Amino acid sequence: MGTVTQWKQLLLSALESNSHLKHSPYFQFATIGCNGRPSNRTVVFRGFEENSDRIQINTDCRTRKIEELKHCPFAEICWYFSDSWEQFRINGRVDVIDGSNPDPEKLQMSNGNAPFLGMRKGHLMLNVKSRLVIYSQREKSWFASSLKSRLQYLGPNPGLPCLSEQSLNELFLDPSSGPVASFCLLVLDPDQVQLSAILN
Amino acid sequence: MGTVTQWKQLLLSALESNSHLKHSPYFQFATIGCNGRPSNRTVVFRGFEENSDRIQINTDCRTRKIEELKHCPFAEICWYFSDSWEQFRINGRVDVIDGSNPDPEKLQMSNGNAPFLGMRKGHLMLNVKSRLVIYSQREKSWFASSLKSRLQYLGPNPGLPCLSEQSLNELFLDPSSGPVASFCLLVLDPDQVQLSAILN
Ligand SMILES: Cc1cc2nc3c(=O)[nH]c(=O)nc-3n(C[C@H](O)[C@H](O)[C@H](O)COP(=O)(O)O)c2cc1C
Ligand SMILES: Cc1cc2nc3c(=O)[nH]c(=O)nc-3n(C[C@H](O)[C@H](O)[C@H](O)COP(=O)(O)O)c2cc1C
Repeated sequence: MGTVTQWKQLLLSALESNSHLKHSPYFQFATIGCNGRPSNRTVVFRGFEENSDRIQINTDCRTRKIEELKHCPFAEICWYFSDSWEQFRINGRVDVIDGSNPDPEKLQMSNGNAPFLGMRKGHLMLNVKSRLVIYSQREKSWFASSLKSRLQYLGPNPGLPCLSEQSLNELFLDPSSGPVASFCLLVLDPDQVQLSAILN
Repeated sequence: MGTVTQWKQLLLSALESNSHLKHSPYFQFATIGCNGRPSNRTVVFRGFEENSDRIQINTDCRTRKIEELKHCPFAEICWYFSDSWEQFRINGRVDVIDGSNPDPEKLQMSNGNAPFLGMRKGHLMLNVKSRLVIYSQREKSWFASSLKSRLQYLGPNPGLPCLSEQSLNELFLDPSSGPVASFCLLVLDPDQVQLSAILN
C-alpha cells in the first residue's frame, strides 16, 4: 500500500508516452466464456484503485463477461502501446462490484445478531470490510465517468460501447444521482505481469 | 470456398481504411492457459488461408500458446481498428501446423495398407486431405515472411517478438531454405464473428 510497484511505474510511463493516441487507454480483456472457450473484448482503463495496483474497468451488469466471471473469476489483460511498441500482459482475479452488494450497515447489524460466530463470523467480518471500501469505489468510478458514458447504462443494448446520438438525446440523467443498477465496476488484482518491448 | 463471407469483406475494408497505421495488422489472441486462466497476447495477422476465411498467424512452437492449444483448441481474436473505431471478435477452433505433421505421401501409403477400414479409415482420409493442404500453407507462410521475421525462429528466446539487431547479425539463414523446426502456423477457423462499431 502506498509504494508503487515497478510494473505500475512502467505502465504509467507507457500511458504517458502514448497519451497523444486516443486509443492508448484501451486494452483487451480476456475471460473464459460460459461454453469454456476464450472470450476477448476491448475495454477502457479507468485508473487504479486508490493506493493500490488494482486495475479498474467500468462495465454493464448485463454484458456476458459478468456471467463469465462468476464461473471463472480470472482475466488476462493484453495492453499494447502502439507508439512505444510495449506490451503488458496482466493476469489476476477480478472482483465484480455491482449495486447488489449488501448495505454495509445492515450487514454489520445482522452480523451482531448472528446465531453462529467463530469461522462464520470471521468470514463475514472480512466481507463487510472489503465491501465497505469497494462500494465507495463504485460510486467514485461512476462520478468520474463523463455524463455521456453514464447514459450508456440506461440504454437497451448493453453490448454496444456507445449509443447513437439520437438515443442519447432521448435519455435523461440527473448528474448528481448515483450509479444506476446496471453499472458495474470490475477490479482486477494483478498477480502476474509480463512486459515485452519490441526493439526497432 | 471461393465466396467471400460478409464479415470477411467488412474486415478487409477495415484493414484497408486503417492501413496507414502500422499497428493495424495486430490483434489480441486469447487462449486458455494450462492453469485454467485466460491467456492473452498480441500477434500479427498473416492473411487468410487461400480461398477461405480461415485466419493465419505465425508463431514459435516453443511459446506457451502451443501447449495451451493442445489442452483447449479454441481461441478468440479481438481486433480493434483504432481509426475506424471498429471491433471484430472472432472465435473459433485453431489448428496448430508444425513441422511434425506426417509426410502426406507416407500417410496415404499406410492408409492403403491399413487393416481397419470403415469409420477409422474415413477419419484418417479426412486427416490426410486437410494435412496435405495445411502442410503447403506452412511453407507458403514461411516464405511470405520477411527474412528478419524468419530469423526470430532461430533465436533462443521464443517469447520475444523481435531479436536485438546484434543477435540478428550473428544469425545466418539461407533465404531459399524451408521452415525451421520451431516455425509454426496457426490457422483459426471462425465459427462466431461479432462486429461492433463506435458511433462518434
Ligand atoms: C474502443 C472500445 C471501448 C470499449 N470500452 C468498454 C468498456 O470500458 N467496458 C465495457 O464493458 N465494454 C466496452 N466496450 C465494448 C466491449 O468491447 C464489448 O463489446 C462489451 O463489453 C460486451 O462484451 P461481453 O458481452 O463479452 O461482456 C468497448 C468497445 C470498444 C470498441
Ligand atoms: C506488436 C507485437 C506483435 C507480435 N506478433 C507476434 C506474432 O505474430 N506471433 C507470435 O507468436 N508472437 C507475437 N508477439 C509476441 C506475443 O505477444 C507473445 O509475447 C509471444 O507470442 C509469447 O506468448 P505465449 O508464450 O503466451 O504463447 C508479438 C508481440 C507484439 C508486441
